Amino acid sequence: MSIILTDPARLSHEAIEEGDLFAPCFDDKGLVTAITVEASTGAVLMLAHMNAEALSLTLSTGLVHYYSRSRAKLWKKGETSGEVQKLVEIRADCDQDALLVLVETTGRGAACHTGRKTCFYRKVEIKNGEAHLTPTGEVRLFDPNLVYNR
Amino acid sequence: MSIILTDPARLSHEAIEEGDLFAPCFDDKGLVTAITVEASTGAVLMLAHMNAEALSLTLSTGLVHYYSRSRAKLWKKGETSGEVQKLVEIRADCDQDALLVLVETTGRGAACHTGRKTCFYRKVEIKNGEAHLTPTGEVRLFDPNLVYNR
Repeated sequence: MSIILTDPARLSHEAIEEGDLFAPCFDDKGLVTAITVEASTGAVLMLAHMNAEALSLTLSTGLVHYYSRSRAKLWKKGETSGEVQKLVEIRADCDQDALLVLVETTGRGAACHTGRKTCFYRKVEIKNGEAHLTPTGEVRLFDPNLVYNR
Repeated sequence: MSIILTDPARLSHEAIEEGDLFAPCFDDKGLVTAITVEASTGAVLMLAHMNAEALSLTLSTGLVHYYSRSRAKLWKKGETSGEVQKLVEIRADCDQDALLVLVETTGRGAACHTGRKTCFYRKVEIKNGEAHLTPTGEVRLFDPNLVYNR
């Protein structure tokens, strides 16, 4: 089943911000930004992108799909790693160019290709005016060299 | 004080993903994506963008700055609305092209220009194969017509 999305060009500014039609504003590359959050904890897992096909497939199958910019192709999350994300809810932001994707993780619960639960595993610290990164303590839940056959 | 950021072109893939230098990967428009989260609750408030100046100012002043794509200018969050965001922590993702910005809100605690706490105030529901939006129940904490003098 393909899901019908509204073309935002058909809608007023008011309708985009306050209306009841889902009219994702894809950018000039046909993408919207997706923030993926673990529904049960609220933890931000990753940031990725969806094109219309990925968004429609996510809504119709209940399994989260993205569009991989680096590989330039549709990407069913977990197709290689097994870390499938089950869709719980999608929320749109005010101007409908960003999505909040609430998911239930499966497998080992690692959203990041490095094997960690979240991609945000380092925090910024300033040392002598220079910005450094320090681990937040996220452990690897899988070995990426084994999972991705490197 | 200007904060020294590392040029990611100087770093290996491994150093970007696992190293201790903060080397934000600005896109072809000079921007990185920022996900803003309320530090005390973990609530995702908004998605915005930062250029190098906004990021450096955020780190040096402790007040969150973005780059407004629609207005094509540096944007100190809260400069009009009073809804200033105090920086708690910035985390970088694996490939350093997305940031998680943990903040303490001030004012009425409304990150969205519509007056709501979060920009993500509607969820997607499918009705007869068409995607609609339903309010999640976020109330307006200010009247945007008064705050922005429309």
